[in-house]
Amino acid sequence: MIDQHTQDIYQQSLTLHRQLQGKLTTTALQKITNKNDLALLYTPGVAAACRAIVENPEDSFALSMRGRTVAVITDGSAVLGLGNIGPAASLPVMEGKALLLKEFANVDSVPIAINTQNTAEIIQFVKHIAPSFVGINLEDISAPRCFEIEAALQDLGITVFHDDQHGTAIVVTAALHNAAKVVGKQFKDLKVVVVGAGAAGLSIANMLLGMELTPGQCQRVPELDRVKDLILVDSKGIVHQGRSDLDIYKQCIAAHSNHQQKTGDLAVALQDADVVIGVSRAGLITKEMVRTMAHRAIVFAMANPEPEIMPEQARSAGAAVIATGRSDFDNQINNVLAFPGIFRAVVDGRLPRITTAMKHAAAQAIAALVPEPTTQQIIPDALDRRVVEVVSKAVLAADNAKNSS
Amino acid sequence: MIDQHTQDIYQQSLTLHRQLQGKLTTTALQKITNKNDLALLYTPGVAAACRAIVENPEDSFALSMRGRTVAVITDGSAVLGLGNIGPAASLPVMEGKALLLKEFANVDSVPIAINTQNTAEIIQFVKHIAPSFVGINLEDISAPRCFEIEAALQDLGITVFHDDQHGTAIVVTAALHNAAKVVGKQFKDLKVVVVGAGAAGLSIANMLLGMELTPGQCQRVPELDRVKDLILVDSKGIVHQGRSDLDIYKQCIAAHSNHQQKTGDLAVALQDADVVIGVSRAGLITKEMVRTMAHRAIVFAMANPEPEIMPEQARSAGAAVIATGRSDFDNQINNVLAFPGIFRAVVDGRLPRITTAMKHAAAQAIAALVPEPTTQQIIPDALDRRVVEVVSKAVLAADNAKNSS
Repeated sequence: MIDQHTQDIYQQSLTLHRQLQGKLTTTALQKITNKNDLALLYTPGVAAACRAIVENPEDSFALSMRGRTVAVITDGSAVLGLGNIGPAASLPVMEGKALLLKEFANVDSVPIAINTQNTAEIIQFVKHIAPSFVGINLEDISAPRCFEIEAALQDLGITVFHDDQHGTAIVVTAALHNAAKVVGKQFKDLKVVVVGAGAAGLSIANMLLGMELTPGQCQRVPELDRVKDLILVDSKGIVHQGRSDLDIYKQCIAAHSNHQQKTGDLAVALQDADVVIGVSRAGLITKEMVRTMAHRAIVFAMANPEPEIMPEQARSAGAAVIATGRSDFDNQINNVLAFPGIFRAVVDGRLPRITTAMKHAAAQAIAALVPEPTTQQIIPDALDRRVVEVVSKAVLAADNAKNSS
Repeated sequence: MIDQHTQDIYQQSLTLHRQLQGKLTTTALQKITNKNDLALLYTPGVAAACRAIVENPEDSFALSMRGRTVAVITDGSAVLGLGNIGPAASLPVMEGKALLLKEFANVDSVPIAINTQNTAEIIQFVKHIAPSFVGINLEDISAPRCFEIEAALQDLGITVFHDDQHGTAIVVTAALHNAAKVVGKQFKDLKVVVVGAGAAGLSIANMLLGMELTPGQCQRVPELDRVKDLILVDSKGIVHQGRSDLDIYKQCIAAHSNHQQKTGDLAVALQDADVVIGVSRAGLITKEMVRTMAHRAIVFAMANPEPEIMPEQARSAGAAVIATGRSDFDNQINNVLAFPGIFRAVVDGRLPRITTAMKHAAAQAIAALVPEPTTQQIIPDALDRRVVEVVSKAVLAADNAKNSS
């Protein structure tokens, strides 16, 4: 059931979208008022900028909007909680993302929804469009295709970053570090259950296990923080090595997690777990399940708009720290805390990719903005304007650390 | 030789491009200052706009920037007079085009330079990106690929318009109607030579012959104005039916022009011609050639930045009306007179294509803005702000005429 408040927001939002005809516009940085303007900004003057780029291709970033502009690209296959609604219907979300990049990080961006859901065609499309942008934010592409697509594009020369995976994983990791502090547990001692094995769930699992997904393989990175154990639960139940229906991404998680190789359903997984992270759908987690978790349990129930369990229910079942994806409860885990700063760094540093080390650095930076976390606040507010700067600095520092090592 | 004035423009333009990092930016139509803004412009509110589009796909134009945004797409194969400089180096021109669309017609647009020059791949790319835009301005794609690409995309449901062809042809046609008035000749009596058989040259020839290029064929449209005869000259000389080296586009022109089936070079073509239209390269037309033309000859020498013949030379050889592509001489033939109004009409009318009738209507509307043409002014000034409105109205009226007939 959608509550009245949410219904009102839907109605107001629809009216606003129709009034504005979207949310973004383009604006000239220089007006054309006379023939000299035309000669400088268009022909013949513009030929000089073209020739400079022919001589030095990197100048395409300095002499055109390319250097500060990101493409937000989707195939419309996994949009919000709406599912596979296709490209045209996904445009309001892509434009919203572009708006957030502009408003939070002053990064220009362009929403692009494409008319194919074929993996090879999407990869080719991104390769073809790459010369026009400083980075690509892949968005709302369904798993497991999103992993293959992103992996195939890591050597393109510009950053290709699937926000549904990494943006979410970064913010969850930040929140979990602080939640652990609140309940007096060590991050490295946590037993975590991740419910939902889409783009976000798999990326969260990878990040919390200190793993790195590279084309054709996944591996632990020794120097990264990791939790003690993790169990991934998909629509068929617990992911374990005995299952024959796992794709290569879930196989990798199975090989590096679930040390006892538990089998069964979500209820089995949650027994004695310190943490449950839901990126699945409304109502999956019951009070009874939460009661079987370890003392001072941490519950992140992030399904939108309705969480896996409502905060008051989780609390009454003994959970100590509760977070959701919603702005109307405490502890909103929202990837707007991550992607604007990430792309600010991409623009400022002309970064060719976002590395695993950068993601962990971003998570640490977000967590550090709440030095004394409480049950009511484990994570900065979604509108906290300090976040972009600390995230981008952390990402750029991680890049420099790599360059100087 | 590039003169000092042009050199200065190049230098100033390069400095300006570097200072501004291009020429366009994106701007939020609504600021995000609190959580309610975030809820309306992004999740959860945005889902309402998505759902509305699922129910009515046409709403993607009303509820997102799609409805007012054009993509300016190139493969970098024929950029200005610079040739095949590739995608990245073409970005300043594409961004300039986008700037002009914004400044002249208040149409939002996005410059996109793509990393392939394969005809089939370009066609597929445009099909894939179509759901994000209300129209596509193809730009600086070399002939004859540009004809095949554009023709293949006419049933996409949104306008695909190659400006190098039609924008130029529309403005030349407008200018020629008025030039004929100045020299006291009837448009339908003119013998015309077109020098240069690239995108612009072929499109000018098609338009002046009252022809229409459709996939796989070209045909005369009986109700359209046409000149008496036309000779097309390419790098091998006069185009005629006896040549075995003609592509299908030139074969079509050969079949419908050059009534005497003249053979030979440009000098032969120009004997007794009323008009010469150059879209080729600097210096190709000599004073001697102009002297052999008919009395009160019309010379449009549009190679940029250096015309086929300089205006003072053409005048001394007896030409009565002279136009170039340059802003520092009288009668600048610049397609900025056409494409902003064309795309204003595409946005206002949600036009699925630009028809031959619309192009002729646009040419007539531009010509009509100079009701009493003189040798110094056959065409409106490039900065004449009336042009966009009359062109868009003429295009929309041509659409309505078709719909009501």
